[in-house]
Amino acid sequence: MRTLLGMVALVCVATAWASAQSAPQELIQPIEAAAVANPAMMELGKKLYFDPRLSRSGFISCNSCHNLSMGGSDNLKTSIGHNWQKGPINAPTVLNSSMSVAQFWDGRAVDLKEQAGGPIANPGEMAFTHELAIGLLASIPQYVEEFERVFDTPVVDIDRVTKAIAVFEETLVTPNARFDRWLKGDRSAITATELEGYQLFKSSGCAMCHNGPAAGGRAFRKMGIVEPYRTDNPAEGRFAVTGRDADRFSFKVPSLRNVELTYPYFHDGAADTLAESVDVMGRIQLGKRYSPEENAKIVAFLKTLTGDQPSFQLPQLPPSSDITPRPNPFD
Amino acid sequence: MRTLLGMVALVCVATAWASAQSAPQELIQPIEAAAVANPAMMELGKKLYFDPRLSRSGFISCNSCHNLSMGGSDNLKTSIGHNWQKGPINAPTVLNSSMSVAQFWDGRAVDLKEQAGGPIANPGEMAFTHELAIGLLASIPQYVEEFERVFDTPVVDIDRVTKAIAVFEETLVTPNARFDRWLKGDRSAITATELEGYQLFKSSGCAMCHNGPAAGGRAFRKMGIVEPYRTDNPAEGRFAVTGRDADRFSFKVPSLRNVELTYPYFHDGAADTLAESVDVMGRIQLGKRYSPEENAKIVAFLKTLTGDQPSFQLPQLPPSSDITPRPNPFD
Repeated sequence: MRTLLGMVALVCVATAWASAQSAPQELIQPIEAAAVANPAMMELGKKLYFDPRLSRSGFISCNSCHNLSMGGSDNLKTSIGHNWQKGPINAPTVLNSSMSVAQFWDGRAVDLKEQAGGPIANPGEMAFTHELAIGLLASIPQYVEEFERVFDTPVVDIDRVTKAIAVFEETLVTPNARFDRWLKGDRSAITATELEGYQLFKSSGCAMCHNGPAAGGRAFRKMGIVEPYRTDNPAEGRFAVTGRDADRFSFKVPSLRNVELTYPYFHDGAADTLAESVDVMGRIQLGKRYSPEENAKIVAFLKTLTGDQPSFQLPQLPPSSDITPRPNPFD
Repeated sequence: MRTLLGMVALVCVATAWASAQSAPQELIQPIEAAAVANPAMMELGKKLYFDPRLSRSGFISCNSCHNLSMGGSDNLKTSIGHNWQKGPINAPTVLNSSMSVAQFWDGRAVDLKEQAGGPIANPGEMAFTHELAIGLLASIPQYVEEFERVFDTPVVDIDRVTKAIAVFEETLVTPNARFDRWLKGDRSAITATELEGYQLFKSSGCAMCHNGPAAGGRAFRKMGIVEPYRTDNPAEGRFAVTGRDADRFSFKVPSLRNVELTYPYFHDGAADTLAESVDVMGRIQLGKRYSPEENAKIVAFLKTLTGDQPSFQLPQLPPSSDITPRPNPFD
């Protein structure tokens, strides 16, 4: 009896071990679809996200630079701001940004809500003020009604505006990438070449920084660990927030989710293609010189990270009223 | 027998007459929903309509100035073009534009297809060239595949691009306005005040120009028939096309459909509100000075012309390939 119990126990242990082996913990985990806790607030946030009246010109909305038709980015090296000003840094994608440790390349905003207020008041971006944006929204009866429905008060303030935008942005996740299906057990979801790319991605060290569900976004890392990164872009990264010398040129590790859609790459937008990005990252971060075949395999893997894009009806914005201040983009 | 037949005939005539009386022919007719003859071409056109890569900067799409979240307009006096150039004229709404006699305020394009090519190559608007736009699209494999599916050839040319955009734009009609429901017999669809506004609109002469399903768009009329219209805007209207002195300051009569959403008004965008527009139109076109009550009634009527806005999923644009030329908005 004792021997029998022992044998059963051994079989159980062996089974558990085999099971763990067949589903090893990967450094990247699948993205799950967003659970929308407050649909009404999400819908309000969606309208605000698309509303160019939050800018001084009446022309630039959140969606202008984080375009949800284009991977949540503008696909420009640096963005175009009010009066065609050249932005200082590449606009990161909004997709899956809720998974980031902090917002902006230097992490100066702790969360999406804090981030959302930044561009509205940034003189180089939407160039408005929170006060003017609030006054504008409060002059639009349909917005006031919607704020009342969502927040149980008709008072429009920047806290509620950015809260609603953040709630919408939290829904902008991209599940069901081919790589996620592979992670969940569908071995046919990626090709042999793509799998080799993933193995190379892990074995050569990319996954040390690009890990978690977003394949990035969880830490700050110096740009140029092995070799210095050469750029004309003056951004100093995390140093601007902490003032610590060790944080100079340290940037938030970008998510690699949907990276096929979010070109150009790096904080300065200097790399136009994934091949170039993989080459530069290998050299300056890992001290590796990938062969063309290796590079192509990693690029093939990266393209398996494109997930289902946010899918929703184009929102309709409530019209301005007779007392809504009119923008004058050219004054 | 003869008398009986005669009486029957008389009753029939009387019935027909009464029927005609109860549904008199109105000067404005209901808008019907668009029949989509070629859904695949429409979907391609929708992507192109939203694609900022058709502009030199990679930032301005058709939807930038004809924003389908905002009544198909940008709600600016004049639009913002490449390098923040100030547009020469108010951007007309794209909604129901398929019903117009011709396109642009001066009618210089015969149809939507011809119109669509204009802004792409206009140095003050999207500032691209047709050749560069075509080369760009042809470098994007998913677009080439889609052109092949739609046109039975992978050849991308400006004729096919503008054809697809026009087919999409033809679907941007706005049926089911409250006024349309009234026209179709639902007497409760508009209020007594709104009906009085409509009667005043007809009796004072507005409907002489603003008629047909679009309540406008069918003819060119001089701006300032009774009194001259004072403006700093140098546009000369239809004269620019015909060279005839009689056409000086003659502009296409704008559609009043969705006019609640398409502020500001007139070719120069000088009137911010419907009340101001009705006042100016009354004075300079009809020699009428509406009382505040009359003005308010006409404005109330105009707001019954807001129909169902186009409703569709935000399109996803195919990503650029490694050989797609990258925009440089700041060169």
